[in-house]
Amino acid sequence: MNYRMILYILGMLLMFQAAFLVIPILTAFLYGEAVVWVYLAVAAGCLGAGFLITRWKPAKKTLFAREGFLIVALSWILLSITGALPFFFSGEIPHFTDALFESVSGYTTTGASILTEVESLSHAALIWRSFTHWIGGMGVLVFIMAFLPLSGAQNMHIMKAESPGPSVGKLVPRVRTTAFLLYAIYFALTVLQLILLLCGGMSFFEAINTAFATAGTGGFGIKNDSLAGYSNYIQIVTTVFMLLFSVNFNSYYLLLRGKWKESLTDEVKLFGGIVLVTIALITWNIHDLFGSLGEALRHAAFTVASLISTTGFATADFNQWHELSQSLLVLIMFVGACAGSTGGGLKVSRILILLKSWSRELKSTLHPKQVKPIAVDGHAVDREVVRSVHSYAVCYVGVFVVSLLLLTLDDTDLITTFTAVTATLNNIGPGLEMVGPTANYAFFSVPAKLVLIFDMLAGRLELLPLLLLFRPSTWKR
Amino acid sequence: MNYRMILYILGMLLMFQAAFLVIPILTAFLYGEAVVWVYLAVAAGCLGAGFLITRWKPAKKTLFAREGFLIVALSWILLSITGALPFFFSGEIPHFTDALFESVSGYTTTGASILTEVESLSHAALIWRSFTHWIGGMGVLVFIMAFLPLSGAQNMHIMKAESPGPSVGKLVPRVRTTAFLLYAIYFALTVLQLILLLCGGMSFFEAINTAFATAGTGGFGIKNDSLAGYSNYIQIVTTVFMLLFSVNFNSYYLLLRGKWKESLTDEVKLFGGIVLVTIALITWNIHDLFGSLGEALRHAAFTVASLISTTGFATADFNQWHELSQSLLVLIMFVGACAGSTGGGLKVSRILILLKSWSRELKSTLHPKQVKPIAVDGHAVDREVVRSVHSYAVCYVGVFVVSLLLLTLDDTDLITTFTAVTATLNNIGPGLEMVGPTANYAFFSVPAKLVLIFDMLAGRLELLPLLLLFRPSTWKR
Repeated sequence: MNYRMILYILGMLLMFQAAFLVIPILTAFLYGEAVVWVYLAVAAGCLGAGFLITRWKPAKKTLFAREGFLIVALSWILLSITGALPFFFSGEIPHFTDALFESVSGYTTTGASILTEVESLSHAALIWRSFTHWIGGMGVLVFIMAFLPLSGAQNMHIMKAESPGPSVGKLVPRVRTTAFLLYAIYFALTVLQLILLLCGGMSFFEAINTAFATAGTGGFGIKNDSLAGYSNYIQIVTTVFMLLFSVNFNSYYLLLRGKWKESLTDEVKLFGGIVLVTIALITWNIHDLFGSLGEALRHAAFTVASLISTTGFATADFNQWHELSQSLLVLIMFVGACAGSTGGGLKVSRILILLKSWSRELKSTLHPKQVKPIAVDGHAVDREVVRSVHSYAVCYVGVFVVSLLLLTLDDTDLITTFTAVTATLNNIGPGLEMVGPTANYAFFSVPAKLVLIFDMLAGRLELLPLLLLFRPSTWKR
Repeated sequence: MNYRMILYILGMLLMFQAAFLVIPILTAFLYGEAVVWVYLAVAAGCLGAGFLITRWKPAKKTLFAREGFLIVALSWILLSITGALPFFFSGEIPHFTDALFESVSGYTTTGASILTEVESLSHAALIWRSFTHWIGGMGVLVFIMAFLPLSGAQNMHIMKAESPGPSVGKLVPRVRTTAFLLYAIYFALTVLQLILLLCGGMSFFEAINTAFATAGTGGFGIKNDSLAGYSNYIQIVTTVFMLLFSVNFNSYYLLLRGKWKESLTDEVKLFGGIVLVTIALITWNIHDLFGSLGEALRHAAFTVASLISTTGFATADFNQWHELSQSLLVLIMFVGACAGSTGGGLKVSRILILLKSWSRELKSTLHPKQVKPIAVDGHAVDREVVRSVHSYAVCYVGVFVVSLLLLTLDDTDLITTFTAVTATLNNIGPGLEMVGPTANYAFFSVPAKLVLIFDMLAGRLELLPLLLLFRPSTWKR
């Protein structure tokens, strides 16, 4: 285990964190808020610590898969802790567990909040919450890797551990180029949304916060009623961009290269199909709750986009909707976005492979001698990928069940507990009942909040990096 | 597709059904109940139809896997329909869907009832409900196979399709001998329980009903309060026997042959571990609801045994217990009993393989070149078995989700809907809230009842036979 290399990368990370804090520092300065000193102090601390640590350069730069996972897990924990400091030291979130919860919820693009009221927060705190979504959406280590003097193979281990979805790196063989390309697309889409929101009459501050939170599929709002108070235009723009940020970024790359057909992968088709069918079913199911079919459609489309993209914005209290709609919403929370997007959940590509193995099982029972491999986009899927998708599903159920049992000790109610785990492990934000779209996570006990913090990180990093932290053999030399 | 052979076996089945009906006929005769004529008429009808059908002997006796699955699915449907006729024609259950629900619930050893009141039923109806559990517990086709002039390989397809759990037939190579052996163990254990119940002061009628329902892990009670009104002794005997009937019958066979060590398989150990841990946790969690720790332990043990064995008897209303206990109970409903027992659920052996692939996935991520096959009882598990367990889990989730969505159209509440599907697909009986241990399934709409009927059959026959009925290619010649 190359501990010095791990430490070196964590040092780099601290310096990046200092750079990220420039955004809230500038905001606080512009709005003349006293919290500017808190943010400056935290940034200075991160910079100083990072500078000192990175002086101690590692002799060997070799990294194996195990170190890759460890670096990712520890980096995200370090980011979350240092990111929580401004909330805590400014006194805007007086308890450290709460500050950490909010910070983890930001970086992991969950958007679950322990705040009962957000409109009284400083502008610095608001933009910091939204900006952590934007940082977390694409993954910070992939970004850092672009600046690190490591070989492609070394980077690969880290990128694999941080990137969502069952496969990665098909796009461009060189990690650095891939990272730049993906960030360029991410940046361009965010700017496009910002402009469209400004056209709808939002102030720049509101628009940039909303764009950050949409791009990272995070969902922290700057209003207590999330997006319910905004115009239809703003809601529709946000609906479209939540869906756009849920699509595999590889598809945009292929689109830019003029490969229209290739960009429409099996995953994207399935994602589109699920979105359309769910919106149609929910619109039909809830139309009696709204004045017109159009209004029902608008709320259904927004909510489906918000939950399948794992953003978590709300325009309506879906906790009041009929049971069919609620069940469908909980289901799409598990499905989540496409692999290689900024969204969370199980990922559509995994669902695709699971559905295909279901259908294959039926076939192979009838004709045991004609078992064909599963094909996606016309190519046979490697047996190991199928196996790892199945194992991932089992791990996922395991983490889900253990979290659920720990949370039941708070003795709230089963739907609250179940959807709280669903909404954090899939990085969504709101669930049902006591964690519904009009509620928040403040009432949970400290141990329960720690479980949910774990779930948010485990969900964002796709379980393994976090689970490996608890395996004693991971720490052996 | 050998339709004539399928028809021939269905004819045989009808004649067996006529024989099974002798039990309620004798009961009705003994108690001087007028319903005796209904049962006699149905038995005569079955016998006549079966006799006519079996006159048309099939030319070819070849059976492939596809026919095996079809025979099993169609047989269970035919059993259920003819088994429902006495309830319907006697007027004791006036609606046919309800009568069918009760009959399916009986044969599939679920024990979910649409009756709001059972104590006013005739003795014939009560014993018929319990006896269907006993028939369904071991599987009726395996029994018929013992009398059919088919080769071992032919039988194997049917036995595979009807028997619970991922593997079968390791015990004895010849199916007929296996079937007789398993039935002998089943019969002996039932008689033993009957004697112990009689020693506890139960009347013969009560004792035989309770023994039938325990042996089949069914759970139909003959009292409105299930087993709550009986003595501690009766409750403890039933607890022990519910657990005994959840153990893989191969273990008893090995025990009888003096192979103590071999009989304690990994599956049995895991089953024992889950039972003990769950009882301990629930006793600790609910001890404030009962007068003493001993009483809490007794109710916890009974309820855990009842739900993990998928019997569904109740001594306490666990719908009033704390959230941790409720969650644990719902979890063990999914785990279910050991493969090769009379219980339902996912089966402990599948959970064992799923847990082992979870642990292997963690290991293989750290050391990708050292992937070892999964081992159970010291032997490597065939890759195809692991694959089929994973696919089974996916199928299971698929059936669960579709059933859940269809049931939400009744717009009750999410916990009722979720646990109703859980309790039927795992062949348990009671769930939570509106289908809790003191409630029943009467309030569901007819379409919802049909979904639950499908789930009970799909759960008992382990999905594939029922799912294949809906595949057009199954019916091709």
